[in-house]
Amino acid sequence: MSYKSKEQTTMRYKSKESKPKKDIYTEQIYPESYQNRLLYTYDTCNSKPFSISRSSSPIHFHLNFEASPAMAMSMAMKRSASTATRAISSAFSGSILTRDLHASSGKKKIVGVFYKAHEYAKMNPNFVGCVENALGIRNWLESQGHEYIVTDDKEGPDCELEKHIPDAHVIITTPFHPGYITAERIKKAKNLQLLLTAGIGSDHVDLKAAVDARLTVAEVTGSNVVSVAEDELMRILILVRNFLPGYHQVISGDWNVAGIAYRAYDLEGKTVGTVGCGRIGKLLLQRLKPFGCNLLYHDRLKMEPELENQIGASFEEDLDKMLPKCDIVVINTPLTEKTKGMFDKERIAKMKKGVLIVNNARGAIMDTQAVADGCSSGHIGGYSGDVWYPQPAPKDHPWRYMPNQAMTPHISGTTIDAQLRYAAGVKDMLENYFKGEDFPAQNYIVKEGELASQYR
Amino acid sequence: MSYKSKEQTTMRYKSKESKPKKDIYTEQIYPESYQNRLLYTYDTCNSKPFSISRSSSPIHFHLNFEASPAMAMSMAMKRSASTATRAISSAFSGSILTRDLHASSGKKKIVGVFYKAHEYAKMNPNFVGCVENALGIRNWLESQGHEYIVTDDKEGPDCELEKHIPDAHVIITTPFHPGYITAERIKKAKNLQLLLTAGIGSDHVDLKAAVDARLTVAEVTGSNVVSVAEDELMRILILVRNFLPGYHQVISGDWNVAGIAYRAYDLEGKTVGTVGCGRIGKLLLQRLKPFGCNLLYHDRLKMEPELENQIGASFEEDLDKMLPKCDIVVINTPLTEKTKGMFDKERIAKMKKGVLIVNNARGAIMDTQAVADGCSSGHIGGYSGDVWYPQPAPKDHPWRYMPNQAMTPHISGTTIDAQLRYAAGVKDMLENYFKGEDFPAQNYIVKEGELASQYR
Repeated sequence: MSYKSKEQTTMRYKSKESKPKKDIYTEQIYPESYQNRLLYTYDTCNSKPFSISRSSSPIHFHLNFEASPAMAMSMAMKRSASTATRAISSAFSGSILTRDLHASSGKKKIVGVFYKAHEYAKMNPNFVGCVENALGIRNWLESQGHEYIVTDDKEGPDCELEKHIPDAHVIITTPFHPGYITAERIKKAKNLQLLLTAGIGSDHVDLKAAVDARLTVAEVTGSNVVSVAEDELMRILILVRNFLPGYHQVISGDWNVAGIAYRAYDLEGKTVGTVGCGRIGKLLLQRLKPFGCNLLYHDRLKMEPELENQIGASFEEDLDKMLPKCDIVVINTPLTEKTKGMFDKERIAKMKKGVLIVNNARGAIMDTQAVADGCSSGHIGGYSGDVWYPQPAPKDHPWRYMPNQAMTPHISGTTIDAQLRYAAGVKDMLENYFKGEDFPAQNYIVKEGELASQYR
Repeated sequence: MSYKSKEQTTMRYKSKESKPKKDIYTEQIYPESYQNRLLYTYDTCNSKPFSISRSSSPIHFHLNFEASPAMAMSMAMKRSASTATRAISSAFSGSILTRDLHASSGKKKIVGVFYKAHEYAKMNPNFVGCVENALGIRNWLESQGHEYIVTDDKEGPDCELEKHIPDAHVIITTPFHPGYITAERIKKAKNLQLLLTAGIGSDHVDLKAAVDARLTVAEVTGSNVVSVAEDELMRILILVRNFLPGYHQVISGDWNVAGIAYRAYDLEGKTVGTVGCGRIGKLLLQRLKPFGCNLLYHDRLKMEPELENQIGASFEEDLDKMLPKCDIVVINTPLTEKTKGMFDKERIAKMKKGVLIVNNARGAIMDTQAVADGCSSGHIGGYSGDVWYPQPAPKDHPWRYMPNQAMTPHISGTTIDAQLRYAAGVKDMLENYFKGEDFPAQNYIVKEGELASQYR
């Protein structure tokens, strides 16, 4: 296997801002996570309505964080310094191709494709990731004279998105309700310069076509890695502890402890392996550490010994040698041509009988029917995840009906906390784009005709 | 509030084997947990059928553990040494009252009350906690000439349990399907000497009557604390991340990300408070640490500063001052006269609007209707647990139908791993009882007419 772990390689994107290897690894787990928390996390129950300041500072939200003001100030200053660095570096980066150039003054047409929230839009002032609340940046954009179109209508030749393709400068979308940017759409999009993912994962874009057209593609790297890692640990516990049969008994008026207990286990002492160990994989392993499991990871690269020791996981160079050891397998790779369908009938057969699989990465990494068959035969003891192929999952998708599934729609990266972080990250990048400044290096998926290594 | 945390005070039971305070605290979290794992945890998928050796060693199961043989041997030796210490100390503890005396040679009648597993009994060779598999100790008991009656029929004057009350020497039951040992039953039980809980929690026994009759009541302290702590963390994540509405969408053919996301949060940055911080509470806090939460605990006693610092939680002396700070409240107290109904309408009203509550302790600690009303009004944002009052929960129990519940039958402490541990612990204690030796000090709930402090 030679596919590449996404977050890890994104960090290694060759740019002026690249850092020594060790710092990169350390940053992947700790500081960014805490930085995000300090800057963007709301208190669940005392949350104030989301609001946007018009200052040029990259910190936009009125926060109610628990950290000390001194700590928050220190983090804010670090961010400002980094913005300044970016500004200076971009002043020296002259590209001659218009589409490469972020600057390009003047009014822009920005198109956002998000999921519709209907009655839910007004139920939480921080629910910014939907069509109705449009990342909370409408007033900010319009006050500067930009046009901002937002829609959830994204499929077929007559959809709303299609209408705006020819003159859009920027398209923003999310992995939860992706506006697919095909080669054909890119060809029609004569003004297009920038494709932004509000979240992580740009497989909804035809990246080759984007490279050829010299578009810039960028994500809010790190914005929801904690959200996804937490969700993975929840799903591991739901499967290991056989939660759902008990819940079904409750709502159907039953009580049969034996019917749950005969296949309920503790997580303690079990072997958990992550396939891919970028940011999300590392955050998951970090959270698994106190559970007393045997932790394994497969990735293109072994961690630095110090970090590996701190995380307490063992490297497995050969995926097919790791899989038979695992009671629980978690998928943490991006979807690329190399990972598409990599968990087919043959590879699933190499896993332990009764293996539990968690996949919050992408549905198409699995062979859909092989997973359904594995669950039906019992070779797969449980399957949980929030990603499907295609999305939204049709009513007859076999994963809806297979035994021992604990599936949800694509949700793990779009918690309220994640929405606030990726909305802030999108606003940051738009601000830089309007000023002609570079984005944080790790956000780029396509830059100046070059594709980030994990998608190659 | 002056109720007492169960596990903590059990450890402080005054006995010849009591240890210096600091050791006790340290033991509460780490070594016991690992010891249990080394000695009893099976590998989920490669598990060998459960079997009993007839050796006098306290280690009965053929294990397939991942730890090094050297480590396992070292732990086994420690246990043997502790058994030896108990044997020596019991040789000097002469009580004149028959019921106090464990020795009493001769054939015994042992009655076990467990849940029936029906078709599930044969589905897993390690599923020992049911009537059919009877803790896996039948051959061992019968080969020594003891009588072993096992039933799930435990209610009413004509039930199977009632028939055997008059001549039983030992009654074993579990919290998952408790054989209630009332004062009336104790009065009828002329031969009764020993009441064993396979698991933790002896509130199914009329403890005052047991004290008066000078019975011995003991649990397998520590046998399922890891199981319950893991389960609590699962339930916290299920509620915070709003898992169940997504799952319901999947099984009903829907797809509506907004309907989940508008109230889905990350756990990171939230305030979690445990009410009671004995073994389970501490294991939970230990597992919560990497999530980056604000951790609080209320207990009768503050932890030693070193342990508190290691766990990373802050002590809250006054429960009613802690509750309004918590986004998530977890109940970790035993059920006693003092904790019964302690979460009533008034106390729930003191919590944050939208608070999430997890209760795997005992259902009767809550006012049933107050919880249902809180969920209906939205003051309680979610409620999850596996304990009910009464148990089994009747078909019309309001917690089955209240909004935002994530309930199951009483399951968290009866995973396969926990069953193997508490079956081993029961066999250990029976072995000691037959030999006239003491049990591990922390297992006693009633000993020589004295009630363990947490139940006083």
